[in-house]
Amino acid sequence: MSDHLKFIDIGVARVDVDRHQRCGFPEVIFGQGKTPEDVVAISQKIVERHGIVLITRANDEQAEAMAAAIPASQYYRRARCIAVEAAPLAKVDGTVAVVCAGTSDLPVAEEAVVTLEVFGNTVTKFFDVGVAGIHRLLAVRDQIEACNAVVVVAGMEGALPSAVAGLISKPIIAVPTSVGYGAHFGGLAALLGMLNSCGSGVTVVNIDNGFGAAYAAATINRQLHAARHGQSS
Amino acid sequence: MSDHLKFIDIGVARVDVDRHQRCGFPEVIFGQGKTPEDVVAISQKIVERHGIVLITRANDEQAEAMAAAIPASQYYRRARCIAVEAAPLAKVDGTVAVVCAGTSDLPVAEEAVVTLEVFGNTVTKFFDVGVAGIHRLLAVRDQIEACNAVVVVAGMEGALPSAVAGLISKPIIAVPTSVGYGAHFGGLAALLGMLNSCGSGVTVVNIDNGFGAAYAAATINRQLHAARHGQSS
Amino acid sequence: MSDHLKFIDIGVARVDVDRHQRCGFPEVIFGQGKTPEDVVAISQKIVERHGIVLITRANDEQAEAMAAAIPASQYYRRARCIAVEAAPLAKVDGTVAVVCAGTSDLPVAEEAVVTLEVFGNTVTKFFDVGVAGIHRLLAVRDQIEACNAVVVVAGMEGALPSAVAGLISKPIIAVPTSVGYGAHFGGLAALLGMLNSCGSGVTVVNIDNGFGAAYAAATINRQLHAARHGQSS
Amino acid sequence: MSDHLKFIDIGVARVDVDRHQRCGFPEVIFGQGKTPEDVVAISQKIVERHGIVLITRANDEQAEAMAAAIPASQYYRRARCIAVEAAPLAKVDGTVAVVCAGTSDLPVAEEAVVTLEVFGNTVTKFFDVGVAGIHRLLAVRDQIEACNAVVVVAGMEGALPSAVAGLISKPIIAVPTSVGYGAHFGGLAALLGMLNSCGSGVTVVNIDNGFGAAYAAATINRQLHAARHGQSS
Amino acid sequence: MSDHLKFIDIGVARVDVDRHQRCGFPEVIFGQGKTPEDVVAISQKIVERHGIVLITRANDEQAEAMAAAIPASQYYRRARCIAVEAAPLAKVDGTVAVVCAGTSDLPVAEEAVVTLEVFGNTVTKFFDVGVAGIHRLLAVRDQIEACNAVVVVAGMEGALPSAVAGLISKPIIAVPTSVGYGAHFGGLAALLGMLNSCGSGVTVVNIDNGFGAAYAAATINRQLHAARHGQSS
Amino acid sequence: MSDHLKFIDIGVARVDVDRHQRCGFPEVIFGQGKTPEDVVAISQKIVERHGIVLITRANDEQAEAMAAAIPASQYYRRARCIAVEAAPLAKVDGTVAVVCAGTSDLPVAEEAVVTLEVFGNTVTKFFDVGVAGIHRLLAVRDQIEACNAVVVVAGMEGALPSAVAGLISKPIIAVPTSVGYGAHFGGLAALLGMLNSCGSGVTVVNIDNGFGAAYAAATINRQLHAARHGQSS
Amino acid sequence: MSDHLKFIDIGVARVDVDRHQRCGFPEVIFGQGKTPEDVVAISQKIVERHGIVLITRANDEQAEAMAAAIPASQYYRRARCIAVEAAPLAKVDGTVAVVCAGTSDLPVAEEAVVTLEVFGNTVTKFFDVGVAGIHRLLAVRDQIEACNAVVVVAGMEGALPSAVAGLISKPIIAVPTSVGYGAHFGGLAALLGMLNSCGSGVTVVNIDNGFGAAYAAATINRQLHAARHGQSS
Amino acid sequence: MSDHLKFIDIGVARVDVDRHQRCGFPEVIFGQGKTPEDVVAISQKIVERHGIVLITRANDEQAEAMAAAIPASQYYRRARCIAVEAAPLAKVDGTVAVVCAGTSDLPVAEEAVVTLEVFGNTVTKFFDVGVAGIHRLLAVRDQIEACNAVVVVAGMEGALPSAVAGLISKPIIAVPTSVGYGAHFGGLAALLGMLNSCGSGVTVVNIDNGFGAAYAAATINRQLHAARHGQSS
Repeated sequence: MSDHLKFIDIGVARVDVDRHQRCGFPEVIFGQGKTPEDVVAISQKIVERHGIVLITRANDEQAEAMAAAIPASQYYRRARCIAVEAAPLAKVDGTVAVVCAGTSDLPVAEEAVVTLEVFGNTVTKFFDVGVAGIHRLLAVRDQIEACNAVVVVAGMEGALPSAVAGLISKPIIAVPTSVGYGAHFGGLAALLGMLNSCGSGVTVVNIDNGFGAAYAAATINRQLHAARHGQSS
Repeated sequence: MSDHLKFIDIGVARVDVDRHQRCGFPEVIFGQGKTPEDVVAISQKIVERHGIVLITRANDEQAEAMAAAIPASQYYRRARCIAVEAAPLAKVDGTVAVVCAGTSDLPVAEEAVVTLEVFGNTVTKFFDVGVAGIHRLLAVRDQIEACNAVVVVAGMEGALPSAVAGLISKPIIAVPTSVGYGAHFGGLAALLGMLNSCGSGVTVVNIDNGFGAAYAAATINRQLHAARHGQSS
Repeated sequence: MSDHLKFIDIGVARVDVDRHQRCGFPEVIFGQGKTPEDVVAISQKIVERHGIVLITRANDEQAEAMAAAIPASQYYRRARCIAVEAAPLAKVDGTVAVVCAGTSDLPVAEEAVVTLEVFGNTVTKFFDVGVAGIHRLLAVRDQIEACNAVVVVAGMEGALPSAVAGLISKPIIAVPTSVGYGAHFGGLAALLGMLNSCGSGVTVVNIDNGFGAAYAAATINRQLHAARHGQSS
Repeated sequence: MSDHLKFIDIGVARVDVDRHQRCGFPEVIFGQGKTPEDVVAISQKIVERHGIVLITRANDEQAEAMAAAIPASQYYRRARCIAVEAAPLAKVDGTVAVVCAGTSDLPVAEEAVVTLEVFGNTVTKFFDVGVAGIHRLLAVRDQIEACNAVVVVAGMEGALPSAVAGLISKPIIAVPTSVGYGAHFGGLAALLGMLNSCGSGVTVVNIDNGFGAAYAAATINRQLHAARHGQSS
Repeated sequence: MSDHLKFIDIGVARVDVDRHQRCGFPEVIFGQGKTPEDVVAISQKIVERHGIVLITRANDEQAEAMAAAIPASQYYRRARCIAVEAAPLAKVDGTVAVVCAGTSDLPVAEEAVVTLEVFGNTVTKFFDVGVAGIHRLLAVRDQIEACNAVVVVAGMEGALPSAVAGLISKPIIAVPTSVGYGAHFGGLAALLGMLNSCGSGVTVVNIDNGFGAAYAAATINRQLHAARHGQSS
Repeated sequence: MSDHLKFIDIGVARVDVDRHQRCGFPEVIFGQGKTPEDVVAISQKIVERHGIVLITRANDEQAEAMAAAIPASQYYRRARCIAVEAAPLAKVDGTVAVVCAGTSDLPVAEEAVVTLEVFGNTVTKFFDVGVAGIHRLLAVRDQIEACNAVVVVAGMEGALPSAVAGLISKPIIAVPTSVGYGAHFGGLAALLGMLNSCGSGVTVVNIDNGFGAAYAAATINRQLHAARHGQSS
Repeated sequence: MSDHLKFIDIGVARVDVDRHQRCGFPEVIFGQGKTPEDVVAISQKIVERHGIVLITRANDEQAEAMAAAIPASQYYRRARCIAVEAAPLAKVDGTVAVVCAGTSDLPVAEEAVVTLEVFGNTVTKFFDVGVAGIHRLLAVRDQIEACNAVVVVAGMEGALPSAVAGLISKPIIAVPTSVGYGAHFGGLAALLGMLNSCGSGVTVVNIDNGFGAAYAAATINRQLHAARHGQSS
Repeated sequence: MSDHLKFIDIGVARVDVDRHQRCGFPEVIFGQGKTPEDVVAISQKIVERHGIVLITRANDEQAEAMAAAIPASQYYRRARCIAVEAAPLAKVDGTVAVVCAGTSDLPVAEEAVVTLEVFGNTVTKFFDVGVAGIHRLLAVRDQIEACNAVVVVAGMEGALPSAVAGLISKPIIAVPTSVGYGAHFGGLAALLGMLNSCGSGVTVVNIDNGFGAAYAAATINRQLHAARHGQSS
């Protein structure tokens, strides 16, 4: 096993260039806490190899450095993402639903949307359909059911995934957000709510982790695509 | 101010016999952690004075001691309550709704029911209407709206009060239960969920505190009764 | 059921214009984390429909944007609220008491006051009557008892609702504040204190949630008004 | 909408008989905290309607009552499950992997296995492959990759899903267990570890919730089956 | 410094026989988790040297072993204490108040009482004077003020020390108890309440630590005695 | 009882002018979160009545406003205190020790020192004598024992009070500080350490609450003074 | 790489027989939660291969099953360990100190002692030398310094490692125990205390994990032995 | 024992100049929260005595003040350390490994590196070898095994020490970092993960405490050096 071929040591990082092969998607850069220089250096290595890179939790300074170094880079500010898609990933059949409870949850929901699209998925958005006005959710029930996987983003008490799970038969990935105050404790209330969901089969990712939920949904959708086309995924 | 008239010192307790006058209901005994002898002794002082007593968090041993000492005492086992109603409180107009999410929340819901009834209220029960099957709640929406106050009992993620609050215009008092497992942490998940409810105006009592919710609902209902009859409550 | 009539999709939000009908009060906007543009856009939709809107957790920037867009908007800075009352809600009989423990709890208490007044209630304020000088509370006991509902705001150990509950027969809604330091943990100490109150029937809302407590008190007061006037509430 | 047809009120519960239609699987009974009588009564209603029922967190007493009432019921003691499969669910193509870190995690892993099998899936087990002996995991890497979905069960620091996620391209659903001691805090350490996994796309269910993870994996597998067979799932 | 004289190594323990000299009271044995044999062995060493010993958190088995080994030993069952007073400590002037909120706090309050008495203090008890009936406390205000130090024992929200501190000028030592349920979290609510007391100068000991509070009060009282008698304490 | 004489309502506060009489010291102002104007207004009322005021948790802005309004006011910047001593409190016999573990604990220790001095006590400081160099503490053991009460300030693991308690026979009041990092959780580690001290009789105040510890120590010292002079304290 | 040689799959476990080679010690069995049969089965595989096995957190039932199956097995009841030493590990030079704070910490300290001895180390015990009587620790300072590594076991506030670290130059491994009550929260107080130790270089293992500390100390001691004898460890 | 010779009282601190003698390394200054003046003053005293000083958690302002006062001082900005090595400590044989999981953990890893080097050790760095790409770790396994001690730095779920412990026979000291988000709770997730490591013998230091881990590793390495050279360490 020639491990030395499977990562590139660039000093501050050992870039895992074998990841696409092993896990289905190339390595994604978590921007938070990295210098613009580090972000650019790692991005260049990955783009060189794969023609595509995604940076999450990016900020304006990183976006500017990326724009200067890789002009094709695209900055999704609300989603806090930067993407370079010189060689876009192949499009996948079907759609993924991104459902969110309130207006304040949008940045996390948009992180999920950008990640899904960069990974080749078509997304349908269902925003501001929280349980305090349950008729808004019931009105779009059939449209959500028509998707292949559902990412549900909610803060406050995190009740939306339970309501969705009671109406829908597709895989549901819940993202608690840090939206709330007082005894919300930075997203803990929504996280616990989702982990204790009375809706069967809801799975959960970390607080504000729109990327992680999107990754999981994309994995499911890619498999379905392969199954429909008679490929092993 | 003649404080010496307002409580009776029986050694292990200073029975607050003025409480009915000040707060609208006589003192209620919290049974947990008290010996059967203490429960009987305190009950006798209150019955002597008011002709009525309610004991919550009671156990079989206390129920037997009470039955022996005060034959008229009634034991509500599922609700863990003992009541003596030699001189029942006056009946109040209208009904209070007790709504609960799942079968496992019944003991807490029943504690609320018994308390409300001993305090003179008529109760309508809406049991097992959790959000994972939202049609069960929608089916009884109008019946709940017709009540004067709503006690909502739920464990798990504690989402039911939010859904009810989005459908109903009456005061909603939420009771988180310790029903759940894993990251439920003894009711913490449901408690945080209810405190962070996206439904406006939901108020919350302690975990498993069916009595406290019933007390609050009874206070509201008594006021309404007085208003309707032109009395100052 | 024509769900399409019951909310208006304005892109960033699905405004719940049916809420007044269902729940008794029109939708209130939680300002925190929303852009001034979003606040204005949502407010305009609600004012158009109902002639009235309330924004809580508002900031100066939002207040300026609102003043520019809707000149009739009023900014209550200490309470962090903005209100437009082109078509004020009908006045309700009786008064609601807002009691607070210390000077530092004023912003939360004032949020409750503004909410109650916008919702048509008359408010009496009892400020700085904490338990460390219990004579200050005893001095106003009868005035509080004369109100229809009591909102009690306190930080530190959150003991005030227990003391009030032992003196008063009206519904008591407790608001823990984040006022404290050290082992106060952002309001947790006061929250736990209130949830564990030895005063029967105290109900609790989220930390610093003056709005929520006011909403609950307004619901009670509106019912009483209807009962007195022989209306179904 | 005829809601009255969609659940059956049996007093202690409103059995959600419409659930199979809406969500893809019939209602599953959470046994914990229910009396044997309640378990039997609810089971009978579901079996009557669907010919199949699954009870999780079951105990010996419930198993005996079920055996008496429904002789065809099967008790999986280590998994704490009871199943009646008079009309088994249709078999689904492909296999689901259940991976577990240590011998002590077996009850939770077995709950996942029984649930998956009752829901029509074929399961391959990879037990005792924790990260402290990483060669044990590397030895079965290709076998796991060949499955359609992976349930990973681990206690202690909950590191196994991260290691699996770095090797495998299939959906990974992580189940933290309460196996550990000291600062494990009943599964909290494993839960936090999994939520913070450096492996992308790991989704998590509640502590010890083998059922929930199995449900999610079964949902994915059923979709794949339908895709392969050209059905809409 | 001849350290070898200052403790006695008896295998399972190094008995600190110098402690009385250094700290004013002889070593006290914490009974919890010790075998009856260990308790007896350590007690005998201390009694031999000082003629007196106190064991806290004792149980029936230990009490029997002590009674057999040292017939003069006295078991205070409600207080969970065993004392041998062959050579009682000298009596100290003045009294210490032990105030407690409710009947359920009695075991902790009694532990404080027994400790104080063994240490030579006269105790006055003020039991069941919680803030939900504040008149009961006001009625004994002057009697408490007449004491030299005040131990205040309370569970629930732990509000009693704040109320006492606002009425009394003497040192106040607060003991939170684990009496409560739901979100009391084993005494945490009362502990946080007392640490955040709005009453100045309240000091706090560990949950249920009646002994610690008594020790602190006894230290103060002994100093006062010495001061009155012109001794250096 | 003429409650109207015992506090002065100045709008933002009800100044408790009876407090000196009831509790032994005049009301102290907690500066944090108050506007300079409020601080000045409340200070003026207290100075008018008592000739003395102490403000804790004060900032530069408040100090400037006080200097302008009451030129005699003194600002202790490291201690974050402002004092006006137009009519200083009478000096008390004996000294109080303020012991602290490290240089970083100085602001809290100095708050204790200023409070003690304003309250008429003489203070001896023992700074930077933490347990990691126990010889530094042993070197001052006799000097500490000579004081009437000991305030011990420590961050990190909060072990200093235990060590002091094992060497000293005087009342020990422990102040945990928020000095630490990582798993210190804002002072929680030190707080828990002190509450669980193996040194008998240690009492504890809130994190960083130098004032509270000083208040308690001053109460003890004042009593001793009175006892020595044959006064009732 | 022939992974199939490096572990033995016995159904309930994959025994890691390569571990001795990789990590220096053979696999140790964590007994808690395993059936006696499982313990015996796994033990037999390891003894077969290595002639030695250690089981920690063992109980009486497991000890009996082991005694029946492997007569040479030795049960250390206080330490909750079972050992089979048919082929004992080679003795290592020098000694390891096991220091403990109080009598109640003995089971954890003994687990460390047994583990160290089975791993070939000589142990010196220093029991009951907690900081509340610091002279007991000072009296043995030089003896501890003469050891190669120090395991320090303490409950309560966990201060002992800090005091030891200030006196000793050898590696110190701290074990917090769950000994304490009230706000000890099952060992959390001691754990946080040790993690925040002001003594430099203290490292910490999980609550009650005497085995883990012993393992770390044994690793150090084995290296020293090898160094002294000119071997690569 | 002449304690007065063993520390130097400079007002804000009692510099422990005996520490090198007792503990093997001179006192190290924790820079956080200290003024530049205090840092310089304490540094000068230590340099005067020992010719060397290390300051951790230093900032730019302190570095400038040090550069001005002691020109030989060196500022390691990423590591947040300042060192003066006028009389460097003697070099020690062998190397210490510093292993870290991701790029974001570098500041903590570098603090460990600087500390180790100032203490006379040779360091080999293995950065960015987290478990999500386990081949990166396997590739350097033998190089790590060749070191005398291993410091492992990781954030997120803190799984790296477990993987290392399963591959390596040398002492492993784990440092959890605060790198993570959402339910990472400032490093708590990584800390709990490491404390619950399934890898035997892993010891843990406080969150982000690279210095503490380095200190412990240096203590081990110094002992080995002494053993190899036939010295008592």
